[in-house]
Amino acid sequence: MFEWLFGRRRRAGNAPVLGSRAEANAAADRVDLSDLTPDLVSFLGQTAYLELAVFESLSRAVAEAPTLQIKEGISIVAGEALAKHQGLVAELRKKKVDPATAMQPFTDAIDRFEVLTRGRDWYETLLGVYITAGFLDDFFARLVSGLPRTVAARVAEVLSSAGSDEVIISALRAGMEADPNLAARLALWGRRLVGDTQLVARSAIAASDSAEGIHRRIEPVFTDLLGAHTRRMDALGLTA
Amino acid sequence: MFEWLFGRRRRAGNAPVLGSRAEANAAADRVDLSDLTPDLVSFLGQTAYLELAVFESLSRAVAEAPTLQIKEGISIVAGEALAKHQGLVAELRKKKVDPATAMQPFTDAIDRFEVLTRGRDWYETLLGVYITAGFLDDFFARLVSGLPRTVAARVAEVLSSAGSDEVIISALRAGMEADPNLAARLALWGRRLVGDTQLVARSAIAASDSAEGIHRRIEPVFTDLLGAHTRRMDALGLTA
Repeated sequence: MFEWLFGRRRRAGNAPVLGSRAEANAAADRVDLSDLTPDLVSFLGQTAYLELAVFESLSRAVAEAPTLQIKEGISIVAGEALAKHQGLVAELRKKKVDPATAMQPFTDAIDRFEVLTRGRDWYETLLGVYITAGFLDDFFARLVSGLPRTVAARVAEVLSSAGSDEVIISALRAGMEADPNLAARLALWGRRLVGDTQLVARSAIAASDSAEGIHRRIEPVFTDLLGAHTRRMDALGLTA
Repeated sequence: MFEWLFGRRRRAGNAPVLGSRAEANAAADRVDLSDLTPDLVSFLGQTAYLELAVFESLSRAVAEAPTLQIKEGISIVAGEALAKHQGLVAELRKKKVDPATAMQPFTDAIDRFEVLTRGRDWYETLLGVYITAGFLDDFFARLVSGLPRTVAARVAEVLSSAGSDEVIISALRAGMEADPNLAARLALWGRRLVGDTQLVARSAIAASDSAEGIHRRIEPVFTDLLGAHTRRMDALGLTA
């Protein structure tokens, strides 16, 4: 379904066998995913286009913001996504790679994903970009260790730079206070979003040669990323 | 029509009597408009919201860009408008003024102006934001000298920071090469835009007490700003 065209240069790897969920969670940081990392240009092209799509979604949220204060706040978050995009594009330029050429293979899948997560109104759109961008930033940050050492640190810094999430949280909270039905709707929406987002990330992994083993290895990482997702939903007063 | 709410603290001033157009043009830099400058909070609120509107227009142009290369290029220009907005907002925060409160009085007029200059397709929208933002940035930069000295230099730097105009120029040129009718349409559109933009700027001035004298004084400045407009149109191969 989603052709994220990961890992053309993948090597086979052995899955560490993990026991309980708790163990898995604790072990997630130790799981070495570096052999699942796509080649540098694919990684940068994909993440750069993803951040550009996040920027576009946030820009739409700026244009349609319910108040001027929220408009101003979301514009800051949009600028942060654009800065991530530009940081990743800068790495492509350092490698003398045309950014458009590097991003092109990933546009269809990411555009489709963006449409899928757009939501029915301003609040769903905002939750959509918050939840999916958060999850995928985390996901790609886990793969950075497989990049060439000279760029890995800079890319990690770009992807994990702290954002102005509190603006999004307070905008969503204000909406839920004004409309008691919104909370239930957003809770459902958040669950669907995280399901779709995991599918996207997982489909990339499934494209590899040793699908079964990779699934077992990626599971504890997803468990860990879901912990971060739960904390995002908690901050909104929603059950993940 | 446009209530830009300029100059609540305006002082009367004498108009230098100017002769020919050529003289006027040469003299434009020497015309002192500082007594027409609105108070600091009005100036910052107005320009901050204007740059936010420019950012929104450019973001829409990013979302609807005809190619990935152009999308990437326009996103840089959108980021520059957002940086201007944020620079002006930073000055408001330094003064302990809530940016939303400062911008609020100007939203209706600027939103109406944005709709007026939106155009019928992607190319007209892009020319619209390029021409009007260029003119109004220049216009406000001329009023900076009337701001308190401590902030004037920083605001001037924000407003006159060089942008990535060449991206816009090459996108419009590519469109005109692909569609020979586009050039004639854009030339007409450019003329209408600069008329509307002058009206907006002028209506602000007309709100003052000594309208007649101010009109005479502002004329050489407009002549000068129209020179910059003509250079923008020239760069596109269009007659202003």
